[in-house]
Amino acid sequence: MKKSLGAKTLAFPTPAWAVATYDANGKPNAMLAAWAGLCCSKPPCVAVSLRAATHSHGAIVARKAFTVNVPSAAYVKQADYLGIASGRDADKFKTAGLTPVASELVDAPYIAEFPLVLECRLLQTVEIGLHTQFIGEIVDVKADDNVLNELGDLDMDRLRPVVFGPGTRHYYGVGEFLGKAFSIGRDL
Amino acid sequence: MKKSLGAKTLAFPTPAWAVATYDANGKPNAMLAAWAGLCCSKPPCVAVSLRAATHSHGAIVARKAFTVNVPSAAYVKQADYLGIASGRDADKFKTAGLTPVASELVDAPYIAEFPLVLECRLLQTVEIGLHTQFIGEIVDVKADDNVLNELGDLDMDRLRPVVFGPGTRHYYGVGEFLGKAFSIGRDL
Repeated sequence: MKKSLGAKTLAFPTPAWAVATYDANGKPNAMLAAWAGLCCSKPPCVAVSLRAATHSHGAIVARKAFTVNVPSAAYVKQADYLGIASGRDADKFKTAGLTPVASELVDAPYIAEFPLVLECRLLQTVEIGLHTQFIGEIVDVKADDNVLNELGDLDMDRLRPVVFGPGTRHYYGVGEFLGKAFSIGRDL
Repeated sequence: MKKSLGAKTLAFPTPAWAVATYDANGKPNAMLAAWAGLCCSKPPCVAVSLRAATHSHGAIVARKAFTVNVPSAAYVKQADYLGIASGRDADKFKTAGLTPVASELVDAPYIAEFPLVLECRLLQTVEIGLHTQFIGEIVDVKADDNVLNELGDLDMDRLRPVVFGPGTRHYYGVGEFLGKAFSIGRDL
């Protein structure tokens, strides 16, 4: 027997991704987004939802580009800061001690210290309610060498991304290996 | 210096959620989705992306409803099976040993054995490319008692959801507590 918790945004896991943009003055800015996810394989796309009130919202509308930056657990404090301050008032890159790098592919910066970066051009804008969902086509993925395994593949154990839990609003790391997809279910 | 990996759907973490529906014959069906995420706070919404070729795609279009079912790590094998077989050929609930429960709120079943369930009515349909994104308004969240903490809040340590890693296509559990959001970044 399940207990009703009401109409709420409670689902696990959600990501903790920094969405980076240039604002109207060309200042690099980044904010943390948890209402986000991959959304299409061809073209490869990722969706991030932002409130219209955020500084980053206007930047994406104007520049039609953003990057998704995946922090490793070592940067969870910096990532959290990006979700607290507003780029309207603060130079968040400077305060967080993060380095903006200009993407050569899209009109947005990415975060040098975060090990995984998705460079996106705005493909679709979906007005839902309080949040606007920006669907970005992933034009390139860039990763630090030390998060790739011997085969050159991204390795979750090396990347150590951050998992966000809505409700209690706690950050977690990624835990133990549970099995290989499209494989362990074949027994059934 | 970051290494370019190309235009790919590589982002971490992604969820492993079972999307459950009734098909045209009223048979309960469920498929695993990783291209998914929360996408709006008001109204509370979740987005799941499905290929038009899937049996579930037609079911959502017809019934305008679905549920998002979050497996605990103990059900990772059953969850993986839901991502392998097609409801066109198989009774996936039966083969996986899972129990469909008719939602009283939306025209879709949910999975009794999965500890967290979001009941959704279809709000928007977004054609992106290979995948169609279905945005569902969350009309209720239901959870098993044993995944709630003393305060009645959903507890990640008790829920133990599954994290999916694209690329290597490995499942992981959720790991150690890293800190409290909107809090640990205040020091900066």
